[in-house]
Amino acid sequence: MIRFENDYTEGAHKRILERLWETNEEQTAGYGMDEHCEKARAYIRKACDVENADVHFLVGGTQTNTTIIASILRPHQGAIAAMTGHIAVHETGAIEATGHKVLTLPSDDGKIKAEQVKERFDAHWNDGTHEHMVQPGLVYISHPTENGTIYSKSELEELSKVCRECGLPLILDGARLGYGLAAKDSDLSLADIARLCDVFYIGGTKVGALFGEAVVIINDDLKKDFRYLIKQKGGLLAKGRLLGIQFETLFEDGLYYEISHHAVEMAMMIREAFAEKGFSFRYDSPTNQQFPILPDEVLKELGKKYSFSFWEKVDDAHTAVRFCTSWSTKKEHVDMLTADIKALQGDWWPE
Amino acid sequence: MIRFENDYTEGAHKRILERLWETNEEQTAGYGMDEHCEKARAYIRKACDVENADVHFLVGGTQTNTTIIASILRPHQGAIAAMTGHIAVHETGAIEATGHKVLTLPSDDGKIKAEQVKERFDAHWNDGTHEHMVQPGLVYISHPTENGTIYSKSELEELSKVCRECGLPLILDGARLGYGLAAKDSDLSLADIARLCDVFYIGGTKVGALFGEAVVIINDDLKKDFRYLIKQKGGLLAKGRLLGIQFETLFEDGLYYEISHHAVEMAMMIREAFAEKGFSFRYDSPTNQQFPILPDEVLKELGKKYSFSFWEKVDDAHTAVRFCTSWSTKKEHVDMLTADIKALQGDWWPE
Amino acid sequence: MIRFENDYTEGAHKRILERLWETNEEQTAGYGMDEHCEKARAYIRKACDVENADVHFLVGGTQTNTTIIASILRPHQGAIAAMTGHIAVHETGAIEATGHKVLTLPSDDGKIKAEQVKERFDAHWNDGTHEHMVQPGLVYISHPTENGTIYSKSELEELSKVCRECGLPLILDGARLGYGLAAKDSDLSLADIARLCDVFYIGGTKVGALFGEAVVIINDDLKKDFRYLIKQKGGLLAKGRLLGIQFETLFEDGLYYEISHHAVEMAMMIREAFAEKGFSFRYDSPTNQQFPILPDEVLKELGKKYSFSFWEKVDDAHTAVRFCTSWSTKKEHVDMLTADIKALQGDWWPE
Amino acid sequence: MIRFENDYTEGAHKRILERLWETNEEQTAGYGMDEHCEKARAYIRKACDVENADVHFLVGGTQTNTTIIASILRPHQGAIAAMTGHIAVHETGAIEATGHKVLTLPSDDGKIKAEQVKERFDAHWNDGTHEHMVQPGLVYISHPTENGTIYSKSELEELSKVCRECGLPLILDGARLGYGLAAKDSDLSLADIARLCDVFYIGGTKVGALFGEAVVIINDDLKKDFRYLIKQKGGLLAKGRLLGIQFETLFEDGLYYEISHHAVEMAMMIREAFAEKGFSFRYDSPTNQQFPILPDEVLKELGKKYSFSFWEKVDDAHTAVRFCTSWSTKKEHVDMLTADIKALQGDWWPE
Repeated sequence: MIRFENDYTEGAHKRILERLWETNEEQTAGYGMDEHCEKARAYIRKACDVENADVHFLVGGTQTNTTIIASILRPHQGAIAAMTGHIAVHETGAIEATGHKVLTLPSDDGKIKAEQVKERFDAHWNDGTHEHMVQPGLVYISHPTENGTIYSKSELEELSKVCRECGLPLILDGARLGYGLAAKDSDLSLADIARLCDVFYIGGTKVGALFGEAVVIINDDLKKDFRYLIKQKGGLLAKGRLLGIQFETLFEDGLYYEISHHAVEMAMMIREAFAEKGFSFRYDSPTNQQFPILPDEVLKELGKKYSFSFWEKVDDAHTAVRFCTSWSTKKEHVDMLTADIKALQGDWWPE
Repeated sequence: MIRFENDYTEGAHKRILERLWETNEEQTAGYGMDEHCEKARAYIRKACDVENADVHFLVGGTQTNTTIIASILRPHQGAIAAMTGHIAVHETGAIEATGHKVLTLPSDDGKIKAEQVKERFDAHWNDGTHEHMVQPGLVYISHPTENGTIYSKSELEELSKVCRECGLPLILDGARLGYGLAAKDSDLSLADIARLCDVFYIGGTKVGALFGEAVVIINDDLKKDFRYLIKQKGGLLAKGRLLGIQFETLFEDGLYYEISHHAVEMAMMIREAFAEKGFSFRYDSPTNQQFPILPDEVLKELGKKYSFSFWEKVDDAHTAVRFCTSWSTKKEHVDMLTADIKALQGDWWPE
Repeated sequence: MIRFENDYTEGAHKRILERLWETNEEQTAGYGMDEHCEKARAYIRKACDVENADVHFLVGGTQTNTTIIASILRPHQGAIAAMTGHIAVHETGAIEATGHKVLTLPSDDGKIKAEQVKERFDAHWNDGTHEHMVQPGLVYISHPTENGTIYSKSELEELSKVCRECGLPLILDGARLGYGLAAKDSDLSLADIARLCDVFYIGGTKVGALFGEAVVIINDDLKKDFRYLIKQKGGLLAKGRLLGIQFETLFEDGLYYEISHHAVEMAMMIREAFAEKGFSFRYDSPTNQQFPILPDEVLKELGKKYSFSFWEKVDDAHTAVRFCTSWSTKKEHVDMLTADIKALQGDWWPE
Repeated sequence: MIRFENDYTEGAHKRILERLWETNEEQTAGYGMDEHCEKARAYIRKACDVENADVHFLVGGTQTNTTIIASILRPHQGAIAAMTGHIAVHETGAIEATGHKVLTLPSDDGKIKAEQVKERFDAHWNDGTHEHMVQPGLVYISHPTENGTIYSKSELEELSKVCRECGLPLILDGARLGYGLAAKDSDLSLADIARLCDVFYIGGTKVGALFGEAVVIINDDLKKDFRYLIKQKGGLLAKGRLLGIQFETLFEDGLYYEISHHAVEMAMMIREAFAEKGFSFRYDSPTNQQFPILPDEVLKELGKKYSFSFWEKVDDAHTAVRFCTSWSTKKEHVDMLTADIKALQGDWWPE
């Protein structure tokens, strides 16, 4: 079985393992106060073009979202997010467990629009009984989204502008950030994101690391005491160096971008194979997740050799599924898959 | 200004004030351990026809919902509710503040259906990644709903059956329960509710009391240590007798039902006046809340003399509003209002 | 049985009941936005000599403490309090239920000292691993304390000074504030408290009202969005007027002070009776709670006619107990009790 | 600088790194559903001699304690622990952040006694106002404790017996479990612990792994839905295999015990060196943490070459400090240290 079901099926990029090996006997201070973490912070600040950003390393995505959001909100506030947002759906209520409601906005493709945020904000404040309702306290977006889609620079600029007008910190979940930056049509750089968001994180788990997410806090007002929050939410790794070493490796010479490009390239090959065969897609994704809508017989056929994720039933005979590539996807596997797609035949075929 | 904006514009039924006066110098134990509370509990158990129900008295609705739900759920569980449910919209995230998500179901009229609950439950358990999502842990309904609508006996029986099949306690918010029981077409008795729900509460604040809600716990599994929860959530009144005396008065000889009927009767007069004039209604409510859709000019006209609540804009020229009656509504005020409705004239009139 | 077991054994001062009766048919806005609340706020601001204080009305003490503390602290912060403080012992973990630790200081008499706060604060910040520990976020005191003791003006000034130096808001739980202000040796006025604290509350439940606590927020930084917190924590009474009417009555012409003085006077009579008989006291209380240490035979004898609270065993043959007076204590009951104390005889008697 | 300041100064045992390297390109399912996790679970069940134990892998200690405790307690319950317990002191209020109070017991050496638990439990239930206080809901111990001390088999049997009589689950924090099992005088096996506790965890972070803790749930009543809790609290690692591979390596052939013994052996050498020189110890620890009380001049001298942790001032001239060894401590470093201890000279010296 060749796995395309998600983007965390293998370990880590071999350079990361090498570095863990080389540094293994070094004795360092704990909890992220070591030199590897310091170096990684410096590389990331430079990549973001923000000299005084605070950079922290956490273990996983749910933990990172929870820690950021709990750090910012007061008890009566909630986080505005797409109804498909990871915090709204796939974190077992981790945000609610810290006391906060996720205020969802409808979304077709995982993205939310500046005007939706403005409307939600105004609706709250124009309601005479607003103190009976959860107050919007921040805006959460994912880039790329859970549907593989990305924000354009102008879209993010508009969102950022509305958020600043409303006094709502803009938080970007970058669990797959590398794949968004590497998307062919993307006009958003890391520096743009740093300029337009208040807090964001650079995902390592899905982009070459064994695990780890690097939180970047741009807004000075949100920096205070963040390490307490990390500790309380279980993210302050005793051997914090493990995170430092990984992000140092990913950011010292552009490895993060290089492997992200590879994943996107592999995804585009799969995309084209399906498209050439006439299949349509549930979302128009330029990143490492592809969502073809396939006849159930095709699923059955491909399922013999490849694993992929069920997404949703489209009709009685068709299903949207997800194929993921990653930094670790082997070209030979993709070649095999695209050949098999090309060779597909059957009654279901649109003549 | 004559107020129809809500059902808590006056103090309490005069018999309740009289009893507070008569008992004022009695010395009693605190925290609901006095004889008045005991008597009130006995009256309520009898009214519910459940000898061994646990009956507790709390101060207000948000507190009561929060206490019940926090008592039942484990941290990874949420409360299924209509998207219009009080806990979903108008409690400033009180449920989330105890760590739990409200899992909302679409609803046109404030009610939810047995099959919706079943689908939501199945959807959770059929999803391969269910532990990444909040587990449904109970079902919350309001009766009457926030839209004035009520469940029929057969509807509640179906809901109850599905809940029991799924192992989901059924919780009924009865902030306006009296007005639901008094609705002309209602075939649901208090005993039916006690038979079909696991926990519910009988609202006092909106039905003749100064304040107070009586929680009735039917399901033995949900009784344990409930007083700890009441205390922690701030509902254990030092002078608990105040609640006992009020519910004793309301339930010793049927006062609760009598004043509920009065409110519904007044509401029906208002309803008919609007209907006769050709206006339609946002919801088909047989209870004390009425939601006529009115031309904005009519609102302006009636607004000179009467207060009512804005509900929602229906179109550019029409608005749904809410008129409430209550145990304290004066017939002379309703007569005045209906006469004024009858006398309405204007360009907006459908010829 | 004549009850001295606590200070909430009766209803309310008769003038309060009269006012509830007189105003019962008034139609008012809900949730504390009515004229009675406005008047009560004005009276209280004047009594505190702080024109721009925010005044809010809540239902009970646990709820009030929880709401204030949850409003102020960030998730990693805790409340410094005496180990005997109400929030530390007798609120079923209500503070912890909002996510915050109570950081306790040792105390013999219920009070804490300025230097204890300073030491605790310094100990936190001088520890190299401070982010692994809960950060002190505010200081909570009770006045009078749970042991009936009171702060002198100079003690409160020192505490306030340290708190301001450390950036820790000083919160005063005034559930029995009237009895503290009325204590013979007290040199603290309400205006002093308003000058020295950041937030405090004036207890009504134990001082003449049916129920209700008036929160006074002095510190501008702590005012924002407080009504959201009240609503979320279940304290926003639909018929908020009930609280307004009660505090209006208590503060329009000094009733609050007058009835507080009565309670203290009654307590002093009881105190003297025990003292004259040679009994000592667990705490040196100048307020409405008295804690004589009595031989168990005396307890048995007095227990036939009077109820009082067990406090703690002192040795095999002696027990500290609590006798409370209140605004409602009848002089004839106190006369009866003091006569009975005077008449006590037995083997236990120190010759 | 040679570091003895804690037991997480290096990476991981080299066999673990080798295995991560060997398995790096394997494609596995996520979230702990892979074969390595399955194998590790089987090894651990066997080591515990409990066939049907549930075994889960989490990332770090604070997270693990929080997840276990939040899974077990109802909202009004707290965790009994030594006042020195990790959850009471060094987790930034993580337990409180899930809503629960830590109910502390005094302890000289980090351990708690069966009779202390019994007394605390009885004190709660014998108090007439118990519902005003946090109900004891479980008992938490560390083994070894934060002070390096260990429970004997008979001590743990008594604790377990009392806990079972009181209906309190017994939870054992085994962050350093290996070092406890390897202590010379220890008569407690892993199987004993599994027999006597309801839930415990086997620490990896401090005993040879890069990171990771293995939770073992023995009590069937506490198994339900635990994976939801792990996810919500941020502990469900996407590449769960990383944890499986590490624990597989540690438990397939006894590596865990072997490296634990090494650490204890190194610690005993340091202990003897200090003891021979006439120094006393703050705690009598047979495990990898040693707490000598040293003259401040000695600290200064040793501090030039070695890092260790400040523990507490003992008097004006003496300080208790902590030296840790671990699986990775080099004998040559210990030899160097013991030689330097032996060579210590100075005025402070007891003649």
